[in-house]
Amino acid sequence: MTLPICFDDIAAAARRLAPVAHRTPTLRSRTADARTGASVFFKCENLQRIGAFKFRGAYNALSQFSEAQRRAGAVAFSSGNHAQAVALSARLLGMPATIVMPKDAPAIKIEATRGYGAEVVLYDRRHEDREAIGARLAKDRGMTLIPPYDHAHVMAGQGTAALELIEDVAAMGEGPLDALLVCVGGGGLISGCAVAARHLAPACKVIGVEPQAGNDVQQSLALGRIVHIALPETIADGAQTLHAGELTFAVMRECVDEVITVTDAQLIATMKFFAERMKLVVEPTGCLAAAALLQGVRHLEGQRVGVIVSGGNVDLARYAALLTS
Amino acid sequence: MTLPICFDDIAAAARRLAPVAHRTPTLRSRTADARTGASVFFKCENLQRIGAFKFRGAYNALSQFSEAQRRAGAVAFSSGNHAQAVALSARLLGMPATIVMPKDAPAIKIEATRGYGAEVVLYDRRHEDREAIGARLAKDRGMTLIPPYDHAHVMAGQGTAALELIEDVAAMGEGPLDALLVCVGGGGLISGCAVAARHLAPACKVIGVEPQAGNDVQQSLALGRIVHIALPETIADGAQTLHAGELTFAVMRECVDEVITVTDAQLIATMKFFAERMKLVVEPTGCLAAAALLQGVRHLEGQRVGVIVSGGNVDLARYAALLTS
Repeated sequence: MTLPICFDDIAAAARRLAPVAHRTPTLRSRTADARTGASVFFKCENLQRIGAFKFRGAYNALSQFSEAQRRAGAVAFSSGNHAQAVALSARLLGMPATIVMPKDAPAIKIEATRGYGAEVVLYDRRHEDREAIGARLAKDRGMTLIPPYDHAHVMAGQGTAALELIEDVAAMGEGPLDALLVCVGGGGLISGCAVAARHLAPACKVIGVEPQAGNDVQQSLALGRIVHIALPETIADGAQTLHAGELTFAVMRECVDEVITVTDAQLIATMKFFAERMKLVVEPTGCLAAAALLQGVRHLEGQRVGVIVSGGNVDLARYAALLTS
Repeated sequence: MTLPICFDDIAAAARRLAPVAHRTPTLRSRTADARTGASVFFKCENLQRIGAFKFRGAYNALSQFSEAQRRAGAVAFSSGNHAQAVALSARLLGMPATIVMPKDAPAIKIEATRGYGAEVVLYDRRHEDREAIGARLAKDRGMTLIPPYDHAHVMAGQGTAALELIEDVAAMGEGPLDALLVCVGGGGLISGCAVAARHLAPACKVIGVEPQAGNDVQQSLALGRIVHIALPETIADGAQTLHAGELTFAVMRECVDEVITVTDAQLIATMKFFAERMKLVVEPTGCLAAAALLQGVRHLEGQRVGVIVSGGNVDLARYAALLTS
C-alpha cells in the first residue's frame, strides 16, 4: 500500500520551514542518561514557535495553498496548540484565518489566538458540533479547513522534528538512533516522525506513547482498525483525541513498532524532572514520550534514544499546581 | 593598569571547557523583540551543567591545578551554584573536593553536592566563620581554596559565556552586539564577559544589573572604591553578595559601562515571562539581566542586545510559589 506521505514530502517541508521555524535545540542530560542507562537526545519542540511542534505542520500546509485559497484563508477548530499554529502561519503568509474554539476555552488561549490576528468563532461544546461549524465556514467563505492531524501536509510538517533530531545526533558525532519515542494523540506527529526515521535511520524502532486513560491507538494497532473511545480523563490534554485519523493510522500501522502507555502520575514526575534537571517548562502532553523512558515503562539500556518533547504550553497556575502536587 | 585577565585567558578557558561544558543555546523570542523594540539574544546558562554558568569558572580553575594540587584537591565555601560547580569539576578531574556549607542550607542542595562526590563540611551560620573554616581546611589538608568569583581563572572561565554568545550571534548572520546585559553578584561573570566583549565586539556597551536592594557594585563604581553593604533582602539569592572582589572590581571599573538595578517584582514578572513565553525555568538571579530590558528599566530600541540568563536552580516549591505570586 502506498503511504499518504513519503520522505521527500518531509524534506520539502523542511525547506519551507527553514526560514520561519525555530531550529529547536537537541539537548542532553547526564542525569537522564545515568537514570536510564541510555544515551538520550531530547528534541525540544517546547521551544518551537507558539510553544509546540504544531507550527511545523500548520505552516507546511498553509504555505502550499493556491492563490485562490490564500485569498479566502484557512479555518481550523482547536482549543489548543493547533489553533495558534494555524493563526500564526496565516499571519506569516498574509492570509485570513478563522479559528473555531469552545466558549469555555481559557480566556488566555482565546486572546493568544486573536493576538496572532485570527478571527475566533466561539461555540457551545455541549450543544454545537465544531466540525459542522468549521465545515460551514469553509463552505460559506470558501476557506480551506486544516484539520489538526489527518492531513498529508500537516503530517509531513510534523515529521521535520524527527528529521532535525536525527541530523542533530549525527552532528554530535553519535551513531544512528536505536529508538525514537514520540507522543501519540491523533497521530500526526508520530506518523511524520516515523516516515522520517524509516528513511534516515532504518534500524530505529519508533515507539509511540499514549496516556493510559486514552490508549485508542494502542487498541487500534492491536485490532487492525481505528478504535473510537470516550473522552479520556488525563492531564495530557493534547492527547485527549477520541480516535486516530485515516491517514495517520495508515502510516502508524506500517511504520510504528509499538505503542505503550504512561499514567498521569508518571507525567507529573517527568514534568518535575524537566523543570528541576533540565530547566525546561514542558506541558503534560509534552512529557509523554520522556515519561516512558524516565519512569522505567520501557528499558532501553545501552541504546541511543531520541525523545520528542512536543510542547510547553501550560497555564502558569496549573503548572505551578502540578509541580507541587 | 594591567587587568587581572585578558582575552587570551578567556580563549584558553574556552578550549579547556569545550570537551566538558554544554555549548548552551542562544535563543530568541519574537515576543521579547516586539516588547522591547530590540533584537534580543538570550544565552541560556540555565541549561549549562549544574544549571548555571558557575561550572565554567570552577572547571577552568581546577583544570589548571598542578599535580600536587590535584592530589590534595579543592575546597570551596558556598551554599549555591559554586558549590556544585566545584564538586562536579573535581569529580570530572578525579580530585577530592570539600565544600563548606551552612547547616541550614536546603537538604536538597547538600545532597546534590554530596551526589557529585564532594565531602560536605557543615557550619553554623551564626557562630562560625566559613572563610576561617575554609582557610583551615586548605592549610590542614593542603587543599586549594577556590573562591566563588575573585580569582583570575574563575573570571576567565565565566567570560566564555559571552564569547560563545558573540560567536552565536555572528553565526546567525547578525551584526555585532550593541549592548550586553549581565547580572552582577560578586562580579565574576560580568568581568569575564566584559573582557570578552571588549575584544570581540569593541563597540558593545556592557551593562551590569543588580538587585535594587543590593546595589553595592553600582555604589562602588560611583565612588571608585569597593563598598560593603549589609545582607540585601532580595529573592535574587545568587546576587546577595556583600561586596565586589578586588580583581573583579578592577575589571569592572575599566570595562563595565554602567550598572543598573531591578526590583524583586520585576524579577518575578521576568521569571513568569521565561516560563510562559520561552518555556525556560530561570532562577531569580538568572532573571536580573533580562528584567532590566523586558521590564523597561533600560530602553534599547533598534539595538542588538545580548542577555546572559545565568542559571535555573530554584527549589520547585519556591518556583511554583513565585509563579503564582
